[in-house]
Amino acid sequence: MTIASHDIPVLRYQPQPHELAYTFGGVPPVHRVAPGTVLELRTEDCFGGLVRGPGDLPSVVCEFPYLNPVTGPFHVEGAEPGDTLAVHFVDIQPARDWGVSTTFPHFGALTSTHATVTLQPPLEELVWRYDIDRQRRTVTFHALRSELSLELPLDPMHGTVGVAPAAAEVRMTITPDAHGGNMDTPEVRAGVTLYLGVNVEGGLLSLGDGHARQGEGEVCGTAVETAMDTVVVVDVVKGVPTPWPRIEDDDYLMSTGSARPLEDAYRISQYEVVIWTAQLLDLDVLDAYQLVSQVGEAPPGNVCDPTYTMLAKLPKKYLPGAEAYGGTHAQLREVAAHYRARQGDR
Amino acid sequence: MTIASHDIPVLRYQPQPHELAYTFGGVPPVHRVAPGTVLELRTEDCFGGLVRGPGDLPSVVCEFPYLNPVTGPFHVEGAEPGDTLAVHFVDIQPARDWGVSTTFPHFGALTSTHATVTLQPPLEELVWRYDIDRQRRTVTFHALRSELSLELPLDPMHGTVGVAPAAAEVRMTITPDAHGGNMDTPEVRAGVTLYLGVNVEGGLLSLGDGHARQGEGEVCGTAVETAMDTVVVVDVVKGVPTPWPRIEDDDYLMSTGSARPLEDAYRISQYEVVIWTAQLLDLDVLDAYQLVSQVGEAPPGNVCDPTYTMLAKLPKKYLPGAEAYGGTHAQLREVAAHYRARQGDR
Amino acid sequence: MTIASHDIPVLRYQPQPHELAYTFGGVPPVHRVAPGTVLELRTEDCFGGLVRGPGDLPSVVCEFPYLNPVTGPFHVEGAEPGDTLAVHFVDIQPARDWGVSTTFPHFGALTSTHATVTLQPPLEELVWRYDIDRQRRTVTFHALRSELSLELPLDPMHGTVGVAPAAAEVRMTITPDAHGGNMDTPEVRAGVTLYLGVNVEGGLLSLGDGHARQGEGEVCGTAVETAMDTVVVVDVVKGVPTPWPRIEDDDYLMSTGSARPLEDAYRISQYEVVIWTAQLLDLDVLDAYQLVSQVGEAPPGNVCDPTYTMLAKLPKKYLPGAEAYGGTHAQLREVAAHYRARQGDR
Amino acid sequence: MTIASHDIPVLRYQPQPHELAYTFGGVPPVHRVAPGTVLELRTEDCFGGLVRGPGDLPSVVCEFPYLNPVTGPFHVEGAEPGDTLAVHFVDIQPARDWGVSTTFPHFGALTSTHATVTLQPPLEELVWRYDIDRQRRTVTFHALRSELSLELPLDPMHGTVGVAPAAAEVRMTITPDAHGGNMDTPEVRAGVTLYLGVNVEGGLLSLGDGHARQGEGEVCGTAVETAMDTVVVVDVVKGVPTPWPRIEDDDYLMSTGSARPLEDAYRISQYEVVIWTAQLLDLDVLDAYQLVSQVGEAPPGNVCDPTYTMLAKLPKKYLPGAEAYGGTHAQLREVAAHYRARQGDR
Repeated sequence: MTIASHDIPVLRYQPQPHELAYTFGGVPPVHRVAPGTVLELRTEDCFGGLVRGPGDLPSVVCEFPYLNPVTGPFHVEGAEPGDTLAVHFVDIQPARDWGVSTTFPHFGALTSTHATVTLQPPLEELVWRYDIDRQRRTVTFHALRSELSLELPLDPMHGTVGVAPAAAEVRMTITPDAHGGNMDTPEVRAGVTLYLGVNVEGGLLSLGDGHARQGEGEVCGTAVETAMDTVVVVDVVKGVPTPWPRIEDDDYLMSTGSARPLEDAYRISQYEVVIWTAQLLDLDVLDAYQLVSQVGEAPPGNVCDPTYTMLAKLPKKYLPGAEAYGGTHAQLREVAAHYRARQGDR
Repeated sequence: MTIASHDIPVLRYQPQPHELAYTFGGVPPVHRVAPGTVLELRTEDCFGGLVRGPGDLPSVVCEFPYLNPVTGPFHVEGAEPGDTLAVHFVDIQPARDWGVSTTFPHFGALTSTHATVTLQPPLEELVWRYDIDRQRRTVTFHALRSELSLELPLDPMHGTVGVAPAAAEVRMTITPDAHGGNMDTPEVRAGVTLYLGVNVEGGLLSLGDGHARQGEGEVCGTAVETAMDTVVVVDVVKGVPTPWPRIEDDDYLMSTGSARPLEDAYRISQYEVVIWTAQLLDLDVLDAYQLVSQVGEAPPGNVCDPTYTMLAKLPKKYLPGAEAYGGTHAQLREVAAHYRARQGDR
Repeated sequence: MTIASHDIPVLRYQPQPHELAYTFGGVPPVHRVAPGTVLELRTEDCFGGLVRGPGDLPSVVCEFPYLNPVTGPFHVEGAEPGDTLAVHFVDIQPARDWGVSTTFPHFGALTSTHATVTLQPPLEELVWRYDIDRQRRTVTFHALRSELSLELPLDPMHGTVGVAPAAAEVRMTITPDAHGGNMDTPEVRAGVTLYLGVNVEGGLLSLGDGHARQGEGEVCGTAVETAMDTVVVVDVVKGVPTPWPRIEDDDYLMSTGSARPLEDAYRISQYEVVIWTAQLLDLDVLDAYQLVSQVGEAPPGNVCDPTYTMLAKLPKKYLPGAEAYGGTHAQLREVAAHYRARQGDR
Repeated sequence: MTIASHDIPVLRYQPQPHELAYTFGGVPPVHRVAPGTVLELRTEDCFGGLVRGPGDLPSVVCEFPYLNPVTGPFHVEGAEPGDTLAVHFVDIQPARDWGVSTTFPHFGALTSTHATVTLQPPLEELVWRYDIDRQRRTVTFHALRSELSLELPLDPMHGTVGVAPAAAEVRMTITPDAHGGNMDTPEVRAGVTLYLGVNVEGGLLSLGDGHARQGEGEVCGTAVETAMDTVVVVDVVKGVPTPWPRIEDDDYLMSTGSARPLEDAYRISQYEVVIWTAQLLDLDVLDAYQLVSQVGEAPPGNVCDPTYTMLAKLPKKYLPGAEAYGGTHAQLREVAAHYRARQGDR
């Protein structure tokens, strides 16, 4: 794909509340776009914007299952089962000057949940409101019951990105799996390319759940949740399947795995990068296993959602000569540069 | 503790093979040392030095349970149950110019194991020999069945450090738990202070299982295993308990948690840093939970040993004014600097 | 509901192959029936009848995701979200004089799987063909590679029964969850009433995956799989929700729980019977917890499917005066008796 | 072993409180006995007899680690590593007319624990006192906060039986593992033979933690705890190892597995009976896997202790011609009959 800057197709889309989706699969596309299209999107926060501060308890103002809305889905022309959808994140900017985080009842890693059931009452439900300063690139935490305010770096990302699942399944957006979904990893930030295996015609990409920043594991169950103005470029890599979502940035190749227990998420993500490494470097699989064992990083995405997510990260500098997906990441980096240059011209 | 450089007591100890220990607990101390003592130690690799290359299969040359030997234990005077032993790593240097890594049968994350039992044959047992260049600070991987040699950075660390367990237990060195043990985290490198809760008089510190480098999770079950010349300073923090091993370096406070399934290791480590943060910053516990949720990192230590290990890492820059263990890390940094200065004088 | 024997509405339905369903949810009903209707159904086996003996390897003759077909769904009139669908199994009879069981690659408890991923090759794929003798009520095992044939008691059951899931989800029939699905418990045999929470109008009941018999846990991943001629009566319990599938027979009240890891399935099932016991006996919840702790049985359903299933069984004799769902089980027993009496008249 | 009734050696032993043990391993034997000896023992309850009713909260009256005391260890002459210790339970009788059960803080399946850590307060600590009627063979539950008293059948058993662990380990009695320990299965009742692999000279058998009855999983963390007068016969099966504790009664062969997560306990126990079945019936392993899949039962022991326990039970009637451990169970049954006959003579 070679794209002159004046050629880049751009679609701007801001969904009305009733146009938001709550599942991957089971929803008709809101738009059809050609590969190479830049999407300028607005996404809502995981509470649909209804939780604005300590007085808005999610369990009161939100209604199950209308949680974690996504923008989309987008039908990408030419994407067929067996292909890979490449989604390059050009820009992710908070659309509000505030965000919220909460202890949602029976949700989070340090509480009993609907799966890890106990007879204890839930943790108290609290809402923290953060100030977001887009110019200073800060997110400010204010303790609710203690004297502390603290500026943290803004590091915007999307918790939820995915496509329609295989086998005609329809899944709540809250659940990550092989189709993507609510992986809740801070690695999905601007500058990265996310690779998603295509299960249905057009792939049907949706995204949402923006976080102004997030710790690894999202231990309390929510990050600094906010609406986002997000720009992505979508592309199709024909004939190359992607069993589990993969991420590439300028320095790393990564695979995700989502499962319970958490070691199975680890296993999936590690298996995927071992096989990937063997392919990219033309290595015996056990040689690749050995190499990954000594150079890999392995942060968790979420340890709070219906399935947990782990990442296997390999520094590209230890993968000499490896070029993933035929150089798609570099190509989309270039499209993004052209797009940004054109934006600068306006 | 203020120590003039000429005052630093130093103990040099290189165990004979028959002096190595294979358990935490159940072994009499090899030495008694005063708090503030510098220990200059030799540690053997996890195979007792018997696996030197592809021809030495661990299952042939090693004999259960004589695996993962540790140097020690050291009785630190004045350490009593309820205190904390602080172990500052001054230096960790490979004692050989080679290391090995293997696929040990039924050990590792991408194989069935003695706990995750299957009817499949084990993965093939292979041994990779690495070159270690202490001057160039490199570890060189050589693929066994493919054409690849790759220089990786030397990053020496100890997989196994711990004290005698509580409740009169004796545990194989292979198992990490609240007493430390085989946590297999690359965070235990030179420059860090490891805090271990004391369960018995003298604490009874042992360490071993040096790795020239290791990926997160130690996915194949072994890192680049090698003997080490290691220098630590030991100290006692009186009256301060440490429920699970903690680590401090110049930039981070960390807690470990070791358990199965892996989410329980995550829960333990996160709970510990939440409580620790609340104490250090005088925060309400749920405020601390919220703060940790947005700033924490959470790499795995091992995902291959009899219990798995996760770390919860908090950047100190987000913990304004926090001073852990009364400034022990800074003090031991100073002792280390004096020690190194004196070494330079020789 | 009082039903005179001549009043019992009966629907007989044998689906054509193209009418089989592979998901819960996402499929329009094949029939609408009134509460109290007797359904005389044919169900296909989990391989769609394509695996007939050792020469028919499932990985060759079956095509993902066309596995584990179900008959249905049936829209039960008047069933609304918040109600409970009661499904009484009047009769389950093998429709063939043979059944099969297999080691399906990467499926089963003693093999690596798609979640518990390893680098080992899969177990060898084998097919065992059983003889089913409906008159003698036997199932005969023939070892493939050893000299053993063994008559076992016929104990027909359904591995898969469920309704459309909540939150607009569509799930593969292979996965058990709160909507039922592939729980694979031998407790779903003739004489029991299965209670399923209704999530959508009409409930949308489907069932399949008949087993001529099954061990607890279904350790190799498949039971003695066969087509079934099955008779159920369906009813609606208005205004009573059922969070997780429950089962009642003449001697036991049971709840299921499906999750990973297996202890979470145990937790869910136990929590449900504790709360249920507290309600039925008007007990304090901790008193109910105590009673359940001393009288409960807890067999696994499956320990091989995408989520695992545990059952919590309480002997009715230890629940004095408890009447579940207003006596629905006894009423449906009576309907079944009338139906059978009428059948005898023919 | 053939034993004339007048020949049966009998050892009667009732430990003083200070003679109780709290670990497997690390304790010198209290007695040396010959194979074939009948041991008439008193065991204390898991609280050391200190919890006698609702006013005695375990967290107040008990002191960690002085919980779950065992009687022993007994050195059985001639038992060497690689042998199996056979322990036949002749009689288990409550030594008191009361027992207790509790919600111990952070212990049990429906509460957060020290491994499954949450920020929630523990469940309220309560103590239920049961009446035990040895004549009527009943245990009577009295609800604490509700109006219910309920007679349940007396079904005495031992929660904790084991030997010294391998690899010089010493383990708290609370933890089940390959050496036995706190498996908490109701299958260890009078009439069964427990087989334990010998790891050290003499085996070093200990037992305790009597339960007047127990539900499967011991969901609240404690059964009806009481002191016991217990009679066992011990024997040694030379040259036959037992990797995980096995149980035989007149109807079943069983293996235990203890691990976390619970599916690993299931895997271990199932693997063991598959291999055992293959050996006993001279079957190919995959044929044995298939047979076990269709005839096995799989109740949990505990789902509340530091490791969880599952049992794999095979009905002997489906194992034609199988004789385990050379008929040891039948022989010990005979010894027990002689012993009882002699007792009747007195």
